[in-house]
Amino acid sequence: MDWVYIEDLKGRLNEDIEIRGWLYNKRSSGKIRFLLVRDGTGVLQGTIYSPDKDHPLFRTFDELTLESSLILRGKVREDQRAPGGLEMSISDIEVVQIAEEYPITPKEHGISFLMEHRHLWLRSRMQHSVLEVRTELIKAIRDFFDGRGFRNMDTPILTPSACEGTTTLFETEYFDQKAYLSQSGQLYNEATAMAFGKVYCFGPTFRAEKSKTRKHLIEFWMVEPEIAFATLDDIKVLGEDLIVSIIERVLENQKEALDVLERETAPLENIKKPFPQITYEDAIRVLNEKGNSISFGDDFGAPEETALSEHFASPVCVTHFPAKIKAFYMQPAEARPDLVLGMDILASEGYGEIIGGGQRIHDPALLEEKIKEHNLPREAYEWYIDLRKYGSVPHSGFGMGVERMLSWLCGIKHIREAIPFPRLLYRLYP
Amino acid sequence: MDWVYIEDLKGRLNEDIEIRGWLYNKRSSGKIRFLLVRDGTGVLQGTIYSPDKDHPLFRTFDELTLESSLILRGKVREDQRAPGGLEMSISDIEVVQIAEEYPITPKEHGISFLMEHRHLWLRSRMQHSVLEVRTELIKAIRDFFDGRGFRNMDTPILTPSACEGTTTLFETEYFDQKAYLSQSGQLYNEATAMAFGKVYCFGPTFRAEKSKTRKHLIEFWMVEPEIAFATLDDIKVLGEDLIVSIIERVLENQKEALDVLERETAPLENIKKPFPQITYEDAIRVLNEKGNSISFGDDFGAPEETALSEHFASPVCVTHFPAKIKAFYMQPAEARPDLVLGMDILASEGYGEIIGGGQRIHDPALLEEKIKEHNLPREAYEWYIDLRKYGSVPHSGFGMGVERMLSWLCGIKHIREAIPFPRLLYRLYP
Repeated sequence: MDWVYIEDLKGRLNEDIEIRGWLYNKRSSGKIRFLLVRDGTGVLQGTIYSPDKDHPLFRTFDELTLESSLILRGKVREDQRAPGGLEMSISDIEVVQIAEEYPITPKEHGISFLMEHRHLWLRSRMQHSVLEVRTELIKAIRDFFDGRGFRNMDTPILTPSACEGTTTLFETEYFDQKAYLSQSGQLYNEATAMAFGKVYCFGPTFRAEKSKTRKHLIEFWMVEPEIAFATLDDIKVLGEDLIVSIIERVLENQKEALDVLERETAPLENIKKPFPQITYEDAIRVLNEKGNSISFGDDFGAPEETALSEHFASPVCVTHFPAKIKAFYMQPAEARPDLVLGMDILASEGYGEIIGGGQRIHDPALLEEKIKEHNLPREAYEWYIDLRKYGSVPHSGFGMGVERMLSWLCGIKHIREAIPFPRLLYRLYP
Repeated sequence: MDWVYIEDLKGRLNEDIEIRGWLYNKRSSGKIRFLLVRDGTGVLQGTIYSPDKDHPLFRTFDELTLESSLILRGKVREDQRAPGGLEMSISDIEVVQIAEEYPITPKEHGISFLMEHRHLWLRSRMQHSVLEVRTELIKAIRDFFDGRGFRNMDTPILTPSACEGTTTLFETEYFDQKAYLSQSGQLYNEATAMAFGKVYCFGPTFRAEKSKTRKHLIEFWMVEPEIAFATLDDIKVLGEDLIVSIIERVLENQKEALDVLERETAPLENIKKPFPQITYEDAIRVLNEKGNSISFGDDFGAPEETALSEHFASPVCVTHFPAKIKAFYMQPAEARPDLVLGMDILASEGYGEIIGGGQRIHDPALLEEKIKEHNLPREAYEWYIDLRKYGSVPHSGFGMGVERMLSWLCGIKHIREAIPFPRLLYRLYP
């Protein structure tokens, strides 16, 4: 008898098949017993019917506890009354294990209890749905870049130097040296972009930030494209295309998961490119007019990001930031060397920055000057300076945080649900 | 004028277009100048023809040094004499930067010099080709698992405990705790497999091994599938399918790169499934007959792996290892509890182990016993034991090392060339 996954059942109706999974719920109604079984790809309703109340399958049914593992055998047919529109007439139940009393119940649990049981919490409908969307998001990102000829070039996690400042770095002994966990693959992307034209890296990154917000993870995944010969304008368009293509794909393929999450999809459906674009200075003006007291030189926080995306009722692209609040490698604007050709794309609905990037300095003398200005150890950046000596070209790129993007797509309130095993301040288990 | 990548030229013949790249080589022949330009996606020959030896483009030509960045304008047409079969008649050269004297020359360089200049070495034809195959390999792996309904579930890098022993772990301060860099996502995969049925993780892993071999990296990428309800036999077939599907795709799409690498492809073309399968004990017997003095309880080293794959002239699947040389979580064989249902797949041509995996213990009491036997801290494994309490099922999975697989595909001698920025003993730069 063939083992079939629930998501593949449509092609196997009225055949004798096997479902392998876990008990999700059960109930009785007269001569019928209903089992809801999940197998990781979906949830299926199975029924046992008998006029004999001592039917052996009824006895098995009675023994089954939540999350018990089992193999159901029988035929599946369409039934509009069943969740998912399919129902199995069960001819046999093979119990694999009767589960101990499952700690996660329909009652409300505190978040620290759920986080402590993250390895089980993943099985819950909402968590499961968020991570189904995550799987789709990752595929959407990869297909987007692969389809445009980008080469996936993995950048190292263990690095000899910091990419953006040293205060939020994890450090480890690397034989006779110190190594730091990467905060971004960008600097290495710049080297591979000069070898492959257009590249992306996609992996975990680390920020040892002592902050506890809804938008920060200690360990998060980031996709970072980088293109030789590209300018700020080029990557602004690339970022928009990426976001719009992700949204279209998720809306098309993950309707069921978004329904489970009760995500209102209209705000996503309405997103159109090009996004409104505004300089940092104009953004300050808009914010001041709305009563926000931010002034030139301040970084945006959550209230400013939310106010801007509400003002435009769209994701917004902010450019031309003050050099002093941005990283050393950012290309100064031509007529205004106090501003840099940086770009942040802010999601709508208050989800804040999802993309950050810009054009990089390509002049070797200017780069060396900035390294000195920022008191960075020149030796560690020798190779990075080399990229400006041997065929330097204007080049640009950005990073998109996967969990930020996913939180927005799913409309979830806290980023900790956007990754299978979140790493947060003081949270390293399981 | 449109900027076109070299790999896309076939659709843009005889149009006025722009190529942006770097000078790869040049030569003169009478009234013609030849430029070889690379743009990361390919190499194109451009020609300048003039009866006037003071032609301005000739003067530009003379200035160009190796790796100078430039924009070529002109029309491209087919020419069988040119490398790649295409040639551009150059109407204009825009010099972006005249490169300083390029340190990597056609003469032989020592490996430590090349490694020190890895950021530039990537541009060389051979290195470029290996990493083009890497890009294809990653896509092949992801498409294989995505196409079979596996959910990509990222597992954490920062973990509170060791997966396989504590001697080769990188350690870091995690606020008030110690964290370790992951050596494998497997334990976490087991949790997500119980939530999603079939999963894979694909990310960097770390081994702080003080060994200097051709087959070891400190930081390497690994893909790890895990399937609930799967047995050793199921994942043996999965491993074979994966390897064969990768080989087919790379042979089909990366012929040019394999040619550059002078990879003889017959040994790859001849690989057929099923692979020969042998138990560890039978493998010992075969090796002893061949004069190898290995005895029961010894782990295979490079000579044993090579001898076995030569003996079968095929990749080989070895199963049923002594429990004492394998990890604590391995399921004992039914009639022989001193053996475990582990599996190694050894590549042919002496490339050694590329897949390691097996069936995991699903009985909670047995798992607790093994954790005690191996002196592992129970608290750290509490969540892992939970997976055996709440609907435990037999389950299996494996890990495939990306750089090992790539080395074999490309026929390269040392694994350090199989990743953009290798991390080796004492090698952390660039």
